[in-house]
Amino acid sequence: MRNTDYSGVRITDGFWLERQKTLREATADAVYDRFTDTHRFSALECTWREGDPHMPHIFWDSDVAKWIEGVAYLLKTEDNPKWRAIIERVTDLFIKNQDADGYFNSHFLVAEKDMRFKERGNHELYCLGHWIEGAVAYFEATGERRLLDAVCRFVDCVERIFKTERSAPFITPGHPELELALVRLWKTTGEARYFDLAKYFIDEHGANAEEPPPAQTYPQIFYNQDDMPVRARKTIEGHSVRALYLLSGMIDVARETNDEELADACKRMFENCTERKMYVTGGVGSLDDGEAFSDDYYLPGRTSYAETCAAISLAMAALRMQTIDENAKYADIAERVMYNGSISGISLDGKKFFYANAHEIDLDFNHVNKYNPRHDRFPKTERVEVFTCSCCPPNILRFIASISGYVLSESDDTVFVNQYMSSESDELDVITRYPADGNVLIKRKKKSKALAVRIPSWCRSFEISAEYELKNGYAFIKSCEDEIKITFDMPIRLVSANRRCHENAGRAAVMRGPVVYCAEGIDNFKDMQAAVIDKSAEFYLYDSEFFVPSIKTEVKLPKCDALYSDLEDVEYDSVSLKLIPYFAYANRGSSDMQIWFLHS
Amino acid sequence: MRNTDYSGVRITDGFWLERQKTLREATADAVYDRFTDTHRFSALECTWREGDPHMPHIFWDSDVAKWIEGVAYLLKTEDNPKWRAIIERVTDLFIKNQDADGYFNSHFLVAEKDMRFKERGNHELYCLGHWIEGAVAYFEATGERRLLDAVCRFVDCVERIFKTERSAPFITPGHPELELALVRLWKTTGEARYFDLAKYFIDEHGANAEEPPPAQTYPQIFYNQDDMPVRARKTIEGHSVRALYLLSGMIDVARETNDEELADACKRMFENCTERKMYVTGGVGSLDDGEAFSDDYYLPGRTSYAETCAAISLAMAALRMQTIDENAKYADIAERVMYNGSISGISLDGKKFFYANAHEIDLDFNHVNKYNPRHDRFPKTERVEVFTCSCCPPNILRFIASISGYVLSESDDTVFVNQYMSSESDELDVITRYPADGNVLIKRKKKSKALAVRIPSWCRSFEISAEYELKNGYAFIKSCEDEIKITFDMPIRLVSANRRCHENAGRAAVMRGPVVYCAEGIDNFKDMQAAVIDKSAEFYLYDSEFFVPSIKTEVKLPKCDALYSDLEDVEYDSVSLKLIPYFAYANRGSSDMQIWFLHS
Repeated sequence: MRNTDYSGVRITDGFWLERQKTLREATADAVYDRFTDTHRFSALECTWREGDPHMPHIFWDSDVAKWIEGVAYLLKTEDNPKWRAIIERVTDLFIKNQDADGYFNSHFLVAEKDMRFKERGNHELYCLGHWIEGAVAYFEATGERRLLDAVCRFVDCVERIFKTERSAPFITPGHPELELALVRLWKTTGEARYFDLAKYFIDEHGANAEEPPPAQTYPQIFYNQDDMPVRARKTIEGHSVRALYLLSGMIDVARETNDEELADACKRMFENCTERKMYVTGGVGSLDDGEAFSDDYYLPGRTSYAETCAAISLAMAALRMQTIDENAKYADIAERVMYNGSISGISLDGKKFFYANAHEIDLDFNHVNKYNPRHDRFPKTERVEVFTCSCCPPNILRFIASISGYVLSESDDTVFVNQYMSSESDELDVITRYPADGNVLIKRKKKSKALAVRIPSWCRSFEISAEYELKNGYAFIKSCEDEIKITFDMPIRLVSANRRCHENAGRAAVMRGPVVYCAEGIDNFKDMQAAVIDKSAEFYLYDSEFFVPSIKTEVKLPKCDALYSDLEDVEYDSVSLKLIPYFAYANRGSSDMQIWFLHS
Repeated sequence: MRNTDYSGVRITDGFWLERQKTLREATADAVYDRFTDTHRFSALECTWREGDPHMPHIFWDSDVAKWIEGVAYLLKTEDNPKWRAIIERVTDLFIKNQDADGYFNSHFLVAEKDMRFKERGNHELYCLGHWIEGAVAYFEATGERRLLDAVCRFVDCVERIFKTERSAPFITPGHPELELALVRLWKTTGEARYFDLAKYFIDEHGANAEEPPPAQTYPQIFYNQDDMPVRARKTIEGHSVRALYLLSGMIDVARETNDEELADACKRMFENCTERKMYVTGGVGSLDDGEAFSDDYYLPGRTSYAETCAAISLAMAALRMQTIDENAKYADIAERVMYNGSISGISLDGKKFFYANAHEIDLDFNHVNKYNPRHDRFPKTERVEVFTCSCCPPNILRFIASISGYVLSESDDTVFVNQYMSSESDELDVITRYPADGNVLIKRKKKSKALAVRIPSWCRSFEISAEYELKNGYAFIKSCEDEIKITFDMPIRLVSANRRCHENAGRAAVMRGPVVYCAEGIDNFKDMQAAVIDKSAEFYLYDSEFFVPSIKTEVKLPKCDALYSDLEDVEYDSVSLKLIPYFAYANRGSSDMQIWFLHS
């Protein structure tokens, strides 16, 4: 199965068209403006000198490059001369300031010049990965290849130093990203040595395990993903974005080389991630310290980290997994991330962002811990415009801008519909209000291949207006009507976490279709933490401004004045609970937020 | 109401006789040995010189003095020449090394000599308080008054510097304790100026609020209890032991001076403590940082601090509260502390101690957080023999050794039985296996006063073999039989916490009589955190080695393999849950421990 690139599918309506409209009207400029304010764009001029303010940071380039990538996706469907001019200006500066050997990094070109390629942790190869992705996207959107050519010269420099000469004091990127980017560069340029370099880095990760795990804190041990060879991995560990970018590169290499040993490692890592270490929202990386994956089933709510970039990188890995294992379960995961833990990272107006995403906000808890120097970190309760480490804003920009890449894939004989959004492609058009409801109309245009449609794992009952056969989570359509109508029943469900998730024991999350709901204090009552949903409660949908409906139900809330009472004396009030989609939380100020509710 | 001193009641059998036997056979020597190993006793020789190892710590004296106090209580009922010899040797050293003006502190006499009485935080007045309590107890047990006299010379020195001259750079003890000790010294010596000095310190606490709350961490603000005058206090804040020792001194002064304004402040502080900030075990001070009280209802389980000394100091305050407010609710609190959160601080063999007492142990949680430099602190999972700051071991020694002081109090016309333990006094004998069962036989000897017996607040049904009238939680006996039989029904109860205790929402604690139960991993199954007790479940008592019975019941445990499942698909296993008294936890190695269970 090969994925159909974002450019092969055009979104025509619905949830994601709205989201992309917000990118165009707000996000792209908002991120650019904040990156300008914070000197990320001017850093590329390479005029900083010792003693000047605003020394360029080692990974600022990656922010700019990711912005370019996201904007390039938008340029593909609609031109914007201002954005093109910015990218051309960046190209000029990149070309003007890159070293004779192709090297570019706006920090090491002007500061710490003798530290070039000296430390694995310095993000130079990570930044190059994002330059590649940005340059490729811009080239594919506009045909302009100056940036791409300049970036290729940097790649050539890296190939020489890290592969031919092995002259740097480290071999593999401290922060994976370059690996998957090189595969992309190979596909765009046709230059096989770029793929070979990607495979080289994948093979070298932990190959010598040259750095024995330092006696540092737990998550640090696996931070650089160099503690063991990739094919030996049984679980996903360490810095979550690094782990999932590495996994994405591993999958790309496994697919292109038919490396079953590598593919098996990828499957183990993905399964450990999604069956042991993933929030119900698709958020991953629960630990603040090391921005890391934690032990199996340790998914704390109030102190969740769940970086926006980590959710996006899980979707990226899921999208690739289906290319080595023809199974709808990967698109199920991508869907979970798409409608929950990724877009929670951006405000509804498209201008503010979460880096860490809360999975419970208890303002009382935050108050107690606010002044405690050793407090467990808790996520911010309101989005902000920019971060010191501001990787997430341009990442969510490029993710949503290229979301149509999640819709289709094809094998030699079949076209697969993996995600449902109103869209057009050479193969078929899709008309749907999904996930507002579960009705999907597919109009087939070409019929050179058979059609398979994903049956979402959350769906227990559906109808398809054609004969089909179920296999690996897909309905393979056996007939060849022009139009296929699908109805996925989309009742409100209570979802339970595995009993090993101790924090959520006795609690249930409210979901409808792929959307996780939450209740916010601003809509509800104090002490939502103690509210009890009856398993047989009636739920009512009502329209909301979130494209998908909101939900109301009645819950029980214990009445009590005493600190401790005999349980038999406790009486309950019936109170109305209002739930909104999780992705829409924290758009109206700081408030309690609760996903997991007690149930009876 | 005046409390009958420990020496007025002799324990003859049962729970506390066993406990005191352990003190005699193990604890007193174990604490002495560890304090000897750690140079606390040899420090009194005052031979340490710059460059020597083991510099005496500023509060080591208090450890020795508290050991003397505890051992003195034991000497009162049974002589022990070895312990007497140790105390005589300590007396010799105190007298030999105390300064001409009476000053004594084994740190400041040999190190930082120019720092004497320079900083409020240096514990010199705190140590003096404990010297007083130790000397008084030793004098009352043995008639030996050399130590008492020497300590009085130190008190005279303090009176001169802090009250007469006001020449120290601070006025009140940074760590309260001296105040309540001075009241005790007045009672023993009859010297009114000692009471006046106690009242002086109480009045001066925060009188000038001379130190504006520093811009420090939250609990630090109230650390020294000097942020406002005592009569203005509305809540209990800051370092929990300091707050409750101060409260004890405040109550003593309020009682002796009939100061209603001060008594009202005491009532407010006590109510805030016990109705908002107390664990179900009577543990208090939930925050590690500052060893402090937290916000109302913030009583975290896995990270509970709940210092053993804090529980003891709550019992001390409760014991005093009944002397200004004739109500059984104070003895209810003392009882909760006595059978739970205090004695959890000492191992069943009497040789090991907890400083912080866990209210939930989830070894998985501890594992995840073990290496996290910013982790929320979690309590030790096994008791240890001695701490660097080892205040708790001698504190639990003196608490249990004088536990009979909690039994009786009297007003002008009534004798009150506040706690039930087999015991003898001039007034009456008590025969009972309480809290193993609820049967109590009282044999009245004198009948010069009426009798009132506490009806424990946990008891919903009881019988008394005499006519009585209920008032303020006491049954006032209206007849004058020689023997009164009381039966308190003692069913197993499920207890709910206020809904504002978010951590325990939807959960219940198992109690029987005053005893809180817990389940340990070693007796049970993994993921106890997810076990659900049915409200109508049958509970079975069975004999245990803990004097009170253990409990068995059947609980439901969700079965599930997937990380997330629809709640309607979740099936439950029925499994047997074994509960032991909370005070007995962690006597068999590190193990999960759970007090609060989900219920249906």
